[in-house]
Amino acid sequence: MNRMKAEEKKETGADSTTLKKKREGRARSLSSFARGLMEECKRLGLNVEAERAVVAVSGGADSTALLLALDELVKAGHVTLDVMVAHLDHGLRGEAGAEDARWVAELAAAHGFKSLIGCADVGARAALSVDNLEQAARRARYEFLVGAASKFKARFVLAAHTMDDQAETVLLRLMRGSGAEGLGGIETVRALDQESGALLVRPLLGWARRAQTEEYCMERGVVARIDSMNVDERFARVRVRRSLLPLMTSFNGRVVEALARTASLLRDDDAALCSFAERLLEEASAGATGEDESEADERAAFDASGSSALRVDVLREAPRGLLRRALRLWIARGRGDTRRLELVHLRGVEALLEGERGGRSALLPGGAKVYRKRGWIHLLTKRVEKGAAPV
Amino acid sequence: MNRMKAEEKKETGADSTTLKKKREGRARSLSSFARGLMEECKRLGLNVEAERAVVAVSGGADSTALLLALDELVKAGHVTLDVMVAHLDHGLRGEAGAEDARWVAELAAAHGFKSLIGCADVGARAALSVDNLEQAARRARYEFLVGAASKFKARFVLAAHTMDDQAETVLLRLMRGSGAEGLGGIETVRALDQESGALLVRPLLGWARRAQTEEYCMERGVVARIDSMNVDERFARVRVRRSLLPLMTSFNGRVVEALARTASLLRDDDAALCSFAERLLEEASAGATGEDESEADERAAFDASGSSALRVDVLREAPRGLLRRALRLWIARGRGDTRRLELVHLRGVEALLEGERGGRSALLPGGAKVYRKRGWIHLLTKRVEKGAAPV
Repeated sequence: MNRMKAEEKKETGADSTTLKKKREGRARSLSSFARGLMEECKRLGLNVEAERAVVAVSGGADSTALLLALDELVKAGHVTLDVMVAHLDHGLRGEAGAEDARWVAELAAAHGFKSLIGCADVGARAALSVDNLEQAARRARYEFLVGAASKFKARFVLAAHTMDDQAETVLLRLMRGSGAEGLGGIETVRALDQESGALLVRPLLGWARRAQTEEYCMERGVVARIDSMNVDERFARVRVRRSLLPLMTSFNGRVVEALARTASLLRDDDAALCSFAERLLEEASAGATGEDESEADERAAFDASGSSALRVDVLREAPRGLLRRALRLWIARGRGDTRRLELVHLRGVEALLEGERGGRSALLPGGAKVYRKRGWIHLLTKRVEKGAAPV
Repeated sequence: MNRMKAEEKKETGADSTTLKKKREGRARSLSSFARGLMEECKRLGLNVEAERAVVAVSGGADSTALLLALDELVKAGHVTLDVMVAHLDHGLRGEAGAEDARWVAELAAAHGFKSLIGCADVGARAALSVDNLEQAARRARYEFLVGAASKFKARFVLAAHTMDDQAETVLLRLMRGSGAEGLGGIETVRALDQESGALLVRPLLGWARRAQTEEYCMERGVVARIDSMNVDERFARVRVRRSLLPLMTSFNGRVVEALARTASLLRDDDAALCSFAERLLEEASAGATGEDESEADERAAFDASGSSALRVDVLREAPRGLLRRALRLWIARGRGDTRRLELVHLRGVEALLEGERGGRSALLPGGAKVYRKRGWIHLLTKRVEKGAAPV
């Protein structure tokens, strides 16, 4: 960084041709890590000119490397992002957590970035909710970042997940028997929340290995922080990182890249099937041609009670991979979420579609149920059941 | 088995009510392994009455258990399959291989089944082909089973792959970065070959663990053979079985079941996407509405040279997961196979679809190529290139 600053000074008096040459020279002299980041931003079509971005920095090697590479790109004039560093102290590690927070604030300041340091009591939050500690920490962090993005009017929130994080996520979900929607792993770009229009972007996910972030921090002479929770073998993710992935690497030296490729392929599959599932739902919601008036009235009464109805004959024709996604989407819309909804519940609903017999129902977690009446299935949410539902 | 035979004798003089009662009693007294097999046959809708079936028996615990369970079901009158045991000596283990063959023939005879023992020189086959030893062995075994089914006029070939085999297959493919088509793993039921109409069925795959097959052999007092290649750690599959799966079991005690569930979900996804890909190909092959006569003529000349053509505008609209399968299918049809066709080649073809510029091509392995001319892509196989292809 000091070298960069020195060059900056020397340039002040040079003419424009010399300046251009220097800039080109500087592009060539970018570190390969910063170049990797720049190329990924281009590939993702991110506008890195005159935008405001929040960068989530824990102080570990991954997020420190991301921040240092952004610093390199800003100083070299390749991006003109207005950066704010955001760090949340989860309140789980006492003084060590507070030290990390101070360290991150100083790192930001030393590179001329603003910073926002937040505090949460994740332990207390976890105790009060159904979430475990990891889930509560993730939720607190996410809420903090949404707040930071809103406060800073940021267009992007950048998070430093690497290809190693992706591989770990794929394996954790695989060991639970996930389908494509889970095995697709972490998304590279997604909407941060429903309202703000901001994007959550992971510009290291598609190409950077964790070892590269560590090397790059070393190159820059920065000793990143070590989070004791990242080496705590009570966490499954830590054991995946320290035992499972090394064993898998003995089968294929590039297994992390292979897992990331699988994730990307399955994300594409899931996206395609979800868009077809949307169409299937539309088709299955349309009035049946053979329906008589009393049937239509009865169905309307069901629907008015807060649920929507789907045609059994249309659903039955759909391939299983599509049907399952359509049912999941339908339930998500009716209930507002898919919490605790598992394959076994969807299979229960699928079983309702078999045969000609109505008057059967399948229970969903949290008290909702799907009821088959003649050629239709109806979703009855808990709220409706308490009222005057026709069941 | 001896107990069963004794019961059979006693029954001869009994009246029909007694007979029926005895049969019910016998159903209850079926081993849980044989009951599992019977339930799976029902679930798969296999007709196990008066059909001829070839059972592939290596002599290992899995296939021995399958044969013994069939014996139990036949003796108890639950199935009336006419069974022929088929065993191939791969010629890779000298006298040990010959001993296994004799052992299987004796096991079959002892239970009143016909048997067919084949010999192959897999080592020589592998040396003469591009296949490695495992691939050559699989190919030889498959050809032998096709021949056995045809000779015996069998409706089914039963193979004893277990849920553990499925889990191993999923992991081996995952470590290579496969998509859903690979991670779907082994199929439970598929056509044995193009012509015969016979089915290859794996009636243990969906439910039986390898340990269950070993326990059942013990229960029946049969000591199954141990194939030295099944404990040879030079084979990746053996290391998956002996190192990787045990480690994964420390994360989830039912990880084998979880992997099998993932495989089943991804098979469904792949089947749905493949059927949509077929439709996409049809749509993309239909004549463009805006095409003028000279363009249509030129395209027909391309097509007559042995390739078919697809419309860029139609393909470009398709989601990636669908497009990739459509291109793979199109290439498979044009070339006759998808050997050595990798993701990187498909990505090369996908790149041709971008922009408005024609006159570009993407190479495929084995000398074929895809050529874009205006709004169409054409597949030129090697055979065509040698002739008078218009490129």
